[in-house]
Amino acid sequence: MRFPTSRNLAGSDAMNPSPDYAAAYLAVQCDDGTVGHASVFTLGRGNDVQLAGIAALEPYLLGRDVEEMLGDLGEASRRLVYESQLRWLGPEKGVIHMAIGAVVNALFDLASKRAGMPLWRYLAAKSPEELCALVDFRYLEDALRPTEALDLLRRGAEGKAERIAELEANGYPAYTTGPGWLGYSDERLVELCELAREDGFRQVKLKVGHSIEDDLRRLRLAREAIGDNVGLAVDANQVWGVDAAIDWVRRLAQFNLAWIEEPTSPDDIFGHARVRAGVRPVQVATGENVPNRVVFKQLLQAEAIDIMQIDASRVAGVTENLANLLLAAKFNVPVCPHAGGVGLCEIVQHFSFFDYAALSGTQTARCIEWIDNLHEHFVAPATVVDGRYLAPMSPGASTQMLAESVAEYAYPNGPVWSVSTRS
Amino acid sequence: MRFPTSRNLAGSDAMNPSPDYAAAYLAVQCDDGTVGHASVFTLGRGNDVQLAGIAALEPYLLGRDVEEMLGDLGEASRRLVYESQLRWLGPEKGVIHMAIGAVVNALFDLASKRAGMPLWRYLAAKSPEELCALVDFRYLEDALRPTEALDLLRRGAEGKAERIAELEANGYPAYTTGPGWLGYSDERLVELCELAREDGFRQVKLKVGHSIEDDLRRLRLAREAIGDNVGLAVDANQVWGVDAAIDWVRRLAQFNLAWIEEPTSPDDIFGHARVRAGVRPVQVATGENVPNRVVFKQLLQAEAIDIMQIDASRVAGVTENLANLLLAAKFNVPVCPHAGGVGLCEIVQHFSFFDYAALSGTQTARCIEWIDNLHEHFVAPATVVDGRYLAPMSPGASTQMLAESVAEYAYPNGPVWSVSTRS
Repeated sequence: MRFPTSRNLAGSDAMNPSPDYAAAYLAVQCDDGTVGHASVFTLGRGNDVQLAGIAALEPYLLGRDVEEMLGDLGEASRRLVYESQLRWLGPEKGVIHMAIGAVVNALFDLASKRAGMPLWRYLAAKSPEELCALVDFRYLEDALRPTEALDLLRRGAEGKAERIAELEANGYPAYTTGPGWLGYSDERLVELCELAREDGFRQVKLKVGHSIEDDLRRLRLAREAIGDNVGLAVDANQVWGVDAAIDWVRRLAQFNLAWIEEPTSPDDIFGHARVRAGVRPVQVATGENVPNRVVFKQLLQAEAIDIMQIDASRVAGVTENLANLLLAAKFNVPVCPHAGGVGLCEIVQHFSFFDYAALSGTQTARCIEWIDNLHEHFVAPATVVDGRYLAPMSPGASTQMLAESVAEYAYPNGPVWSVSTRS
Repeated sequence: MRFPTSRNLAGSDAMNPSPDYAAAYLAVQCDDGTVGHASVFTLGRGNDVQLAGIAALEPYLLGRDVEEMLGDLGEASRRLVYESQLRWLGPEKGVIHMAIGAVVNALFDLASKRAGMPLWRYLAAKSPEELCALVDFRYLEDALRPTEALDLLRRGAEGKAERIAELEANGYPAYTTGPGWLGYSDERLVELCELAREDGFRQVKLKVGHSIEDDLRRLRLAREAIGDNVGLAVDANQVWGVDAAIDWVRRLAQFNLAWIEEPTSPDDIFGHARVRAGVRPVQVATGENVPNRVVFKQLLQAEAIDIMQIDASRVAGVTENLANLLLAAKFNVPVCPHAGGVGLCEIVQHFSFFDYAALSGTQTARCIEWIDNLHEHFVAPATVVDGRYLAPMSPGASTQMLAESVAEYAYPNGPVWSVSTRS
């Protein structure tokens, strides 16, 4: 599916001047008629490649015993990750890894729907031992041994029922990136910042990195509009080298920045560590382009990040994100999931709700990204009220889209893609 | 194209029990009839995904001005790497990055064919300034500034003509992995090791990591067969965690190992550094699964590897491998390219020949992997005599395959893939 978002420049940043948001959307159907859904967020033409990645996984699902697969989702996930015909394409990164993530997420959507629970509660209902069995500890043991993970989950289980009730009553804090796209005019930026403050968001995020003069002007306007009590984060979308990142962020630091996101290559662990040391007290955040748990492990080992931004479909789905949440808990680094795109808010909220309910047990310094875009296409859309995500209550991972939307935005044959507007 | 290599277990290792070697094969044709070729080596079903990645790049080539593109191959490469619709699928890793690598390699095949020179001589004929213009220094400048690269290339140009003549007369050292596949019997291992010694190879490599008892027995047999004057390297294909790697390699070290290759995840820079410190004097090698120059940069910064194993189609082709060669020269680490697969020997030899002619100027501790498999499908096959690669003399990158082979092994319609043997 593709959405013509480039027509209004929502989503524009220093690396992506005018993207059409897209989603490779997947349905896993059982004989009994139950269906699990998931998608990989992509941009424009990239979606075709992502679909081919997902199609390559079909032979490993067709005809499999549903109870067996859903009964051991850790094993189901590892089988795909270590499938030797496909592993060479990563390993554990890029198109094939994101495809595996979508399949794993669809299986968890299916499992939690069949259990009649929203994903976060389905996960929180599992015992520490069951949760550990979902995790692939290969390559992690020098930072997080299975016994340590078990201890973290046992500690996290204390007071779980109270925290679940609290989440269902009060939700979880959100921050908004809606006002800050690079392609927006100053007037629109100010207007949306004022609206964000009125809406009760604890933090606003602006895209930066194209022009230092623009950044300084836009941050001044944003800070004036939101006042001193709302956080102000910036996101460079990997545009700088290490030294340039340090110089640039120091010039922006006067606006009391909450964090600098993706200052440089997501693969550059040492680079992030140097940037972090160079821009204090501004915090460093990254993760939406971190390919797997092995890179997150090192970002934490190197003390390279202050904020870990997990993404729902960059890694191998729920199972690898469970590993990521455990690593963050071990290193005591807050997780603020990446969202936006197509359906990312819908699925990542489950990770933060689970983490508060059954793992870290804290919301301090934590918030989920929010972008008010494309939610109308989902059966159970994520909902933010007074700057907080409401607890998802419907069974599943909130990943199912409306049949009408699927028909309308299918590319290239959906009605929205008339011949004249095809890119 | 797919080759039924699983039928004889050539290519079997600790992660890939029975692969069918495959290649996503690409032709870039100009109006004047000249054609550039390249391929991405893959395994079995993975090839379909890789083909979709390459297909996504077609719109960026169709109708472009050939002289303009070939006149600035650095820019042509960067345009693909930073194309915003596709970059999200990596960034700079996995299927889409390998697809870009194939396109860039095909463009270099085309350019060197049109210049009437083999790729290594085409590159060596360029000035240091022209070579620097091919490199994307983004994310590298904290380790290698453009001025440093220029200095390295200027120094490398001294005595170039003599070294070119020497290469054309004597070739470049090879080592062989042919004897060491995990699926081979002890008898076959011994026989092929004896043959390798007689053939003049300076080093033999064995796959390890499945069973310590098997490894000890096979290494003893191999060492007896090759004697003390031939190197003996081992390759674990990422099968271990950090601590397991150290323990296992220490137990094998009695056989005077040349190096341990891919002891753990190719993403684990710190892990490689710890393994290296833990297994001395055994050297640590990696690279065939290193996704880009940013990870190589850090492996070198962390002093995590003794041997850098560049791969022809894992990264963004000739241009990114030029960056990798420059990084290796800066850090004074020998490059021993990964080869084998389908057509990897053919293309990587050009990188080592170029490096000796125009950059490092040394062959010390350097050799190119050799596997005597599938060369018969190439128009100008790589050739090893007396344990040395002969200098490629035909114009181009040696990447063109025979039309008969393309017809025979095309999947799924080639004659070799009868219905009964399709996987």
